[in-house]
Amino acid sequence: MREDTDLKGNRERARPKGNCIVAQSGGPTAVINESLCAVIQETKRHKEIEEIYGARNGILGLLKEELIDLRKEKSSTIDSLRTAPGAALGSCRYRLKSWNESSKDFEKIIEICRRYNLRYFFYIGGNDSMDTANKVDEAAKRMKYQLEVIGIPKTVDNDLVSTDHCPGFGSGAKYLAISVMEAGRHLESLYDSETVIILETLGRNTGWLAGSCALAKRSEEDAPHLIYFPEIPFSLDKFIKDVKEVYHKIGEVFIVVSEGLRDEKGNYVHARKNRVSTDAFGHPELEGISNYLKEVIESRLKLKTRTIKPDICQQSAMHFASKVDMEEAYLVGKEAVKSALGGKSGSMITIRRETGRIYKRRTSTVKLSLVANTEKRVPRRWINRKGNFVTKEFIDYVRPLIQGEVDIAVQKGLPYYLRLEKRKILAKK
Amino acid sequence: MREDTDLKGNRERARPKGNCIVAQSGGPTAVINESLCAVIQETKRHKEIEEIYGARNGILGLLKEELIDLRKEKSSTIDSLRTAPGAALGSCRYRLKSWNESSKDFEKIIEICRRYNLRYFFYIGGNDSMDTANKVDEAAKRMKYQLEVIGIPKTVDNDLVSTDHCPGFGSGAKYLAISVMEAGRHLESLYDSETVIILETLGRNTGWLAGSCALAKRSEEDAPHLIYFPEIPFSLDKFIKDVKEVYHKIGEVFIVVSEGLRDEKGNYVHARKNRVSTDAFGHPELEGISNYLKEVIESRLKLKTRTIKPDICQQSAMHFASKVDMEEAYLVGKEAVKSALGGKSGSMITIRRETGRIYKRRTSTVKLSLVANTEKRVPRRWINRKGNFVTKEFIDYVRPLIQGEVDIAVQKGLPYYLRLEKRKILAKK
Repeated sequence: MREDTDLKGNRERARPKGNCIVAQSGGPTAVINESLCAVIQETKRHKEIEEIYGARNGILGLLKEELIDLRKEKSSTIDSLRTAPGAALGSCRYRLKSWNESSKDFEKIIEICRRYNLRYFFYIGGNDSMDTANKVDEAAKRMKYQLEVIGIPKTVDNDLVSTDHCPGFGSGAKYLAISVMEAGRHLESLYDSETVIILETLGRNTGWLAGSCALAKRSEEDAPHLIYFPEIPFSLDKFIKDVKEVYHKIGEVFIVVSEGLRDEKGNYVHARKNRVSTDAFGHPELEGISNYLKEVIESRLKLKTRTIKPDICQQSAMHFASKVDMEEAYLVGKEAVKSALGGKSGSMITIRRETGRIYKRRTSTVKLSLVANTEKRVPRRWINRKGNFVTKEFIDYVRPLIQGEVDIAVQKGLPYYLRLEKRKILAKK
Repeated sequence: MREDTDLKGNRERARPKGNCIVAQSGGPTAVINESLCAVIQETKRHKEIEEIYGARNGILGLLKEELIDLRKEKSSTIDSLRTAPGAALGSCRYRLKSWNESSKDFEKIIEICRRYNLRYFFYIGGNDSMDTANKVDEAAKRMKYQLEVIGIPKTVDNDLVSTDHCPGFGSGAKYLAISVMEAGRHLESLYDSETVIILETLGRNTGWLAGSCALAKRSEEDAPHLIYFPEIPFSLDKFIKDVKEVYHKIGEVFIVVSEGLRDEKGNYVHARKNRVSTDAFGHPELEGISNYLKEVIESRLKLKTRTIKPDICQQSAMHFASKVDMEEAYLVGKEAVKSALGGKSGSMITIRRETGRIYKRRTSTVKLSLVANTEKRVPRRWINRKGNFVTKEFIDYVRPLIQGEVDIAVQKGLPYYLRLEKRKILAKK
């Protein structure tokens, strides 16, 4: 596999000698620590970078001066963290205000950067996190503080633009596919009890995860039978018609729904909007679409229905992660360090897929400002005409990303997942 | 490991020469097909048993004369079925009426037994299924038809009496433990977003699966922090107090709840009772305890809460099944054949645990009538004084049952699970 990087660009700017900071942000994925370890391990190879600090809980760790000295960790610890689910440094969803709203946070961040001589800033996260990285990059420039800021893509949702796909997604897709495959076999053997299963995936605005469940299907009778996407306006009547049709043909119905289905008017089909259920970025927290549709099917079709909600398991199931995904999560972390040293500050690492039958990829970069707060949706032509399943193009796109299994050391029947001790936070300077 | 069986008993009764029938009933488990394959493979070793028929969908296959000739399947097919989730023959929840209510079904069953010269009847299932097997045994005796009926224990719930534990449970427990372990790591890295996770396990009346989630915990901060059992009357005020206490101590709360929590008066805390939501055995189908408790926590404690509902994935997750569980599922199938030939008709195979530090077990038998429709609950002393976690005795009991991993052949990133084709049903005689 060719893994060369486009490192042309501004080589005239002097590479600053100094320390680096790495942080993780947003919802973790099974492979988020791969990227972290890659940053640490790659950084150690470059003399320009001296100390390696980790910020606890994303940008908040920098604001609160909660740092961990990652050079002090044993190599074996760093290596073991690679297969630990959750964000080893801790994560956050804190939203930095824009400079015009308030420069307070930025002044604090740059002040701490100065104090620790932080010259390299690596931020592992999704589109909200790229907004954070972008704002830090802009603030540093504005305050004339030389800081090389690189975003490292991570999101189970796969909704980052400018990259073919995003580390974290492949493992989520693989875990959902096996869950649908196994639960589908279970459903088909239940002759006279449950008839309908609704599995709810993550995906507020994009159906990448929901669509990936189609990987479980090898024949017409195989689950899933129907998939519903946030990209396609949801009609309850059409839904009922679809369910009836599959039921009459196959005798059971396995439905996958993305958590964020919207009606023709763009309103969420079933959103709970209350005080605690909106995140820091103002996104409504959606829960209950599967329960809602279960009630609809039971009352309108009188078919006994069960719901499955893997929820954060699809973001943390290291025990069935994709090896390709893990390798790519490492790759983007490693490339981030190279890009920082190559004068690509203000960029996020991207993955480009090369054309051809055999899956090949290489990395590149994109300006953070182009990625922040945007969303890549499933192309309409990758969803079938009826809007209730994926096309072959979708399958061809996602299949390479779930390949390979990860060896997890199991002790007494369960893995031993390492963590960084919270007490390792450094005393404030 | 000693795996000898108590085969003393009525050896005077002549072993009938004839054909056998095997069926699967109730909710499948990840390892239910192990028992099926054991019956087929062991049967082939005994000359007394000629044809081997499988009934489609449990007792319904016998009533409808939907039989499969299992001798016609290749050995390699039978062997591959061992790791396929779902019930390979199909399952049912059909309840036979008592003889006094109606003897119609029994007359039909015995008539078909005569027609196919069925002399051995193996029924793989849980306590409801043992009721079916028991009734068939009694009807055969009443109708003076010599039929050796043996029940083969299977239930993810682990609620069968007279057996130390039940095949299917270990794999469910292992899958739930890894899910809690991984989701727990995810939760602890979310600094400023979700604070509470509620994972809902199966278990209408017994907390075996919920309690097993405790295997995920190795230190105080590890998930799960609280577990609630159907065996302990549920108090909402106590629950809120528990959640608050953990939150103040650890900063996040991972709660496991069994689907069937009851209040002091014995009423389900949150049961939906409508026409489609009661199964054939009259058990109310419970859904929504986790959603209900989420709402309670969000409104009373203002803590953002997510729910996880693995549902039937805990019954079908072959990709992380327990090897010990698989071996035992095979063992009880094999012993069933030996017991049928040993004149133990009217019994279910049981597993006895030998005393001592190292886990050893042997099989035995119990009268079907003693197992049918009963339920083994978690002993009070295996739940802590506060009623919100297990004790060491519970852990010592369950840990041996989740040991060992199963090798699943993975092709292109996902397993290839075999199925018996539906079209293989024999023409009626």
